[in-house]
Amino acid sequence: MEQQVENRQVIFKGFIERAPRETDMELKVGRISGGLKAPAGSGAFLVKNLYLSCDPYMRGRMRDSRTSYIPPFVPGQPIEGFGVSKVIDSDDPDFKPGDIVAGFTGWEEYSLIRKTNQLRKIEQHDVPLSYHLGLLGMPGFTAYVGFHEICSPKKGDTVLVSAASGAVGHLVGQLAKLHGCYVVGSAGSSQKVDLLKNKLGFDEAFVYKEEPDLDVALKRYFPQGIDIYFDNVGGDMLDAALLNMRVSGRIAVCGMVSQHSQTNPQGIHNLFNMITKRIRMQGFLQSDYLHLFPLFFDQVTEYYKQGKITYMEDTVRGLEHASAAFVGLFSGRNVGKQVIHVASP
Amino acid sequence: MEQQVENRQVIFKGFIERAPRETDMELKVGRISGGLKAPAGSGAFLVKNLYLSCDPYMRGRMRDSRTSYIPPFVPGQPIEGFGVSKVIDSDDPDFKPGDIVAGFTGWEEYSLIRKTNQLRKIEQHDVPLSYHLGLLGMPGFTAYVGFHEICSPKKGDTVLVSAASGAVGHLVGQLAKLHGCYVVGSAGSSQKVDLLKNKLGFDEAFVYKEEPDLDVALKRYFPQGIDIYFDNVGGDMLDAALLNMRVSGRIAVCGMVSQHSQTNPQGIHNLFNMITKRIRMQGFLQSDYLHLFPLFFDQVTEYYKQGKITYMEDTVRGLEHASAAFVGLFSGRNVGKQVIHVASP
Repeated sequence: MEQQVENRQVIFKGFIERAPRETDMELKVGRISGGLKAPAGSGAFLVKNLYLSCDPYMRGRMRDSRTSYIPPFVPGQPIEGFGVSKVIDSDDPDFKPGDIVAGFTGWEEYSLIRKTNQLRKIEQHDVPLSYHLGLLGMPGFTAYVGFHEICSPKKGDTVLVSAASGAVGHLVGQLAKLHGCYVVGSAGSSQKVDLLKNKLGFDEAFVYKEEPDLDVALKRYFPQGIDIYFDNVGGDMLDAALLNMRVSGRIAVCGMVSQHSQTNPQGIHNLFNMITKRIRMQGFLQSDYLHLFPLFFDQVTEYYKQGKITYMEDTVRGLEHASAAFVGLFSGRNVGKQVIHVASP
Repeated sequence: MEQQVENRQVIFKGFIERAPRETDMELKVGRISGGLKAPAGSGAFLVKNLYLSCDPYMRGRMRDSRTSYIPPFVPGQPIEGFGVSKVIDSDDPDFKPGDIVAGFTGWEEYSLIRKTNQLRKIEQHDVPLSYHLGLLGMPGFTAYVGFHEICSPKKGDTVLVSAASGAVGHLVGQLAKLHGCYVVGSAGSSQKVDLLKNKLGFDEAFVYKEEPDLDVALKRYFPQGIDIYFDNVGGDMLDAALLNMRVSGRIAVCGMVSQHSQTNPQGIHNLFNMITKRIRMQGFLQSDYLHLFPLFFDQVTEYYKQGKITYMEDTVRGLEHASAAFVGLFSGRNVGKQVIHVASP
């Protein structure tokens, strides 16, 4: 008698051109025939997913566009994303049952991983496993690369971080403080602002929604102007920052979360300041800098163990809450890194 | 009896917030008392102006704004700008009568130069004097710095130049060709396009006004995308270029001429491409790179003498036509560098 295992999955229903809704995904119960095995000769391994990551970039994969740096999701198939998983069975000699891995997996209980080079083995177990999705994963590395490689920071620089309580933002701010910078964060609620100032060591923080004029707000916090703007949102904040940059200022263009769901994105009007202020504005992807990953990993692990970096995680338990957690990213529901706890090892 | 000399002057009438008109300037006859002398003890020198330069950046000095990199014009005083002049009398030991100088002077027949360090002596006389306002002056140096220092060019790169028949643009395109790049220029008339292709060696050129969709036009000339966009105009062309940049593309933000006269500049909508394509966009001013001026001067002089660079100049004769020549910059009247010939040495 063939052994069948239930496999709950979060299915991507179809392409959208607006902000994601919970109903764009659907929880289904799939079945795995033949037991929890990696087929012989496949070179694949089968994992039990422990933690899954909700990241804003995933919204871009919900569009039917082949022009991005990453292919779109496949309608009818589980959402794909970063996860921390435990190997159950393996046909890849480099991985064995019991190994804990981090990298691309599916939004489901069990995944058969064929592109095994998209995951790395977690060798050390002295930080919580889920941290490999944030502090020591893509968002942490984005913060590290974006700040150190794109922003050309100097001690004493004035730094603005938008979406500052988000997965990337709250780490950028702390890296900037460790570098000797003056750091101001913008966030979407007074609770978040309180965390930034009182828990994460930001010099100042403000609720952007409560500012009638962002230009005025930035002049209040940066009377001498901004050296570095780490831009996670685009839109109005980018336009206001352009008005307040100092000569030779740098802008790292990271998330543009405010523009993710717009087919006709908002216009940026103040680019002329790039000439008069000689501003450098640069988009980047952490995946172009993977040669720096080991350096990042060791340094940030060390910062964390020494208590120099505080990491904020926002965890929901259960695959059934995954779609709500993901959608919440775009309304600013999460505080810090949004993670889904699917199962324990 | 006191000696009086007539001095015709182009006077700046007052600040504006729209495109410049001829009536924003006024030709007046001033008088110089005491003859053509530099006052003893002043450290100044008195020049006869030979050539004056019309440059788009001067429009910014017609605004009542102290936030720019250069102060506004003074209402009631002559327009200030780059010129080539002959020293008539000098109280500065470094300059003597008969010296030819290039640098900041007034739009008038004779100017008393107090900031003598803003002019350099022209020692070689093997290129036409007026070329020190273009090919070997600020526009040429802007092209050189912008292309070599900002665009990080590599042999084989695909390069788009807007306002390609302008003072800066036509030199950028030729520097790019000398660097082994594929170069396409956009310009405002078929006459200019013809010059770009048949006289200056651009690989392709097109009339932007005749293109119903700039995105389509750029895809025609850059089926594999754009590595470098040297942006002299901003606006729609910048937005279309952002859609067509290749991964790791570079944009040098130079003139934004299309936005010069707008108090509420046009929005740029496609900045999201900066992330997916990892684009670097950088504003710059040639004055930040003056340490490279001698290198530029020697190299471009050499190119010119070897016939490797063609320089296009658009000359009007007489101060009375200065304001019309300046205003014409913003409607694309000029072909190449716009110069006013005031007098012969």
